[in-house]
Amino acid sequence: MPHFKLTLAYDGAPFVGWQRQAEGVSVQGLVEDALAELEGSAVSLAGAGRTDAGVHALGQVASVFLTRSIDAATLVRAANAHLPATIRILAADEVSPAFHARFRATAKTYRYRIWNADVLNPFERGHVWHSPAPPLDCEAMAASAMLLEGFHDFAAFQAASAMSRTTWRTIFSSRVVAAEPGDRVPLVVYEIRGEGFLRHMVRSIVGTLVDIGKGRHPASWMREVLVSKSRATAGRTAPPEGLFLVGVEYDGPDL
Amino acid sequence: MPHFKLTLAYDGAPFVGWQRQAEGVSVQGLVEDALAELEGSAVSLAGAGRTDAGVHALGQVASVFLTRSIDAATLVRAANAHLPATIRILAADEVSPAFHARFRATAKTYRYRIWNADVLNPFERGHVWHSPAPPLDCEAMAASAMLLEGFHDFAAFQAASAMSRTTWRTIFSSRVVAAEPGDRVPLVVYEIRGEGFLRHMVRSIVGTLVDIGKGRHPASWMREVLVSKSRATAGRTAPPEGLFLVGVEYDGPDL
Repeated sequence: MPHFKLTLAYDGAPFVGWQRQAEGVSVQGLVEDALAELEGSAVSLAGAGRTDAGVHALGQVASVFLTRSIDAATLVRAANAHLPATIRILAADEVSPAFHARFRATAKTYRYRIWNADVLNPFERGHVWHSPAPPLDCEAMAASAMLLEGFHDFAAFQAASAMSRTTWRTIFSSRVVAAEPGDRVPLVVYEIRGEGFLRHMVRSIVGTLVDIGKGRHPASWMREVLVSKSRATAGRTAPPEGLFLVGVEYDGPDL
Repeated sequence: MPHFKLTLAYDGAPFVGWQRQAEGVSVQGLVEDALAELEGSAVSLAGAGRTDAGVHALGQVASVFLTRSIDAATLVRAANAHLPATIRILAADEVSPAFHARFRATAKTYRYRIWNADVLNPFERGHVWHSPAPPLDCEAMAASAMLLEGFHDFAAFQAASAMSRTTWRTIFSSRVVAAEPGDRVPLVVYEIRGEGFLRHMVRSIVGTLVDIGKGRHPASWMREVLVSKSRATAGRTAPPEGLFLVGVEYDGPDL
């Protein structure tokens, strides 16, 4: 029974999110349907992360067992032919049956993009949070972002509705850059890499960072929010359209 | 009577092109309508270049006379409020009455983007020409592109329907780069800067370049096409979605 690791990119705008739901069109649902066309029967996809409605992915990972023998290149080509252009399978790799996209992930990286100018470039619409002038204080944002690195209780940055077993998470890096390398554009880019994330965690961190960038609070406020362990102290949840799941990492012998 | 030079960006996908037409939604029409809202009566916009249906602009230029006194920042903000997010006025500068966006332009730069891989990144859809593998021969394309620099008769690269007074044009630079700087993506980018362009000229040059990139003809074929002065010898007209009007240059005392 071949087992595949799929790497996917998608524009999240038209979808209710990664996860298949009772109502609405999900990425998981469309990819499962496309694979079912090849398989001749229903398949079940395990995704690395449940991106929310409107959140994008540059490198989401999912794993799937198929019964039909198929080579990876054919799988990519045939499945993409059954998917809308907003979702692309970038790669398929045959993996050991012990692999699992979610439980074997060792790190995930998210990127959040903020367009910090009055006029939003039409080619960036839907892929940034538009924060008009005045310019955000990127130095204060960068300093406060780094305070999140390490093993912390991130309860303050969890969606009010979430019920996680534990709210402690390890964050390997949490950095603000004033723009993407090589660009001379008013983009503020935040990137966070960690072992795992709580629901809405990146977006509520970004909401808090932007409050600091606007001078409403000093950089040290980030630590106060963190230790408060209370969602009410943090900034608003930043909108989904600026968020990208950049990639998921694995190690070990399953690959 | 204040005279403004406007710099505009737009995603050309939803429009019949820059120029106002009897049928369909044009960029010129929408911008004229937005300015008419501020002016209280109809206004007429002179555009630097008539981008075709589906062609994008990063820096189109247009000039307009207004009767109402208005400062440039207010003009930008108010006009953008009346425009769809696919069209943005990036800047407004008050200029001498002698300025004219089209007749005073000294150079224009166009960029054409080709996605040269089997799987099209969902975030590039609509903004590239998708040319699946095998990889294009970028060296041959680059060598042939440079053959167009100088003062030549570009009749071979003019739309069959066009009726220009002269088909001679000066091209200052014509270059292929394997990717945009800093990117490690399968993008082939062509950039051409010239005094002026014939209808469909950039797109038929790109169609010819891609034939060379696919090995159908050697790099020297570009010169044969040029001297043939016949549209029938050149490659196909590349699709509009890969083409961007990057910018328009002016000099002189009118600015």
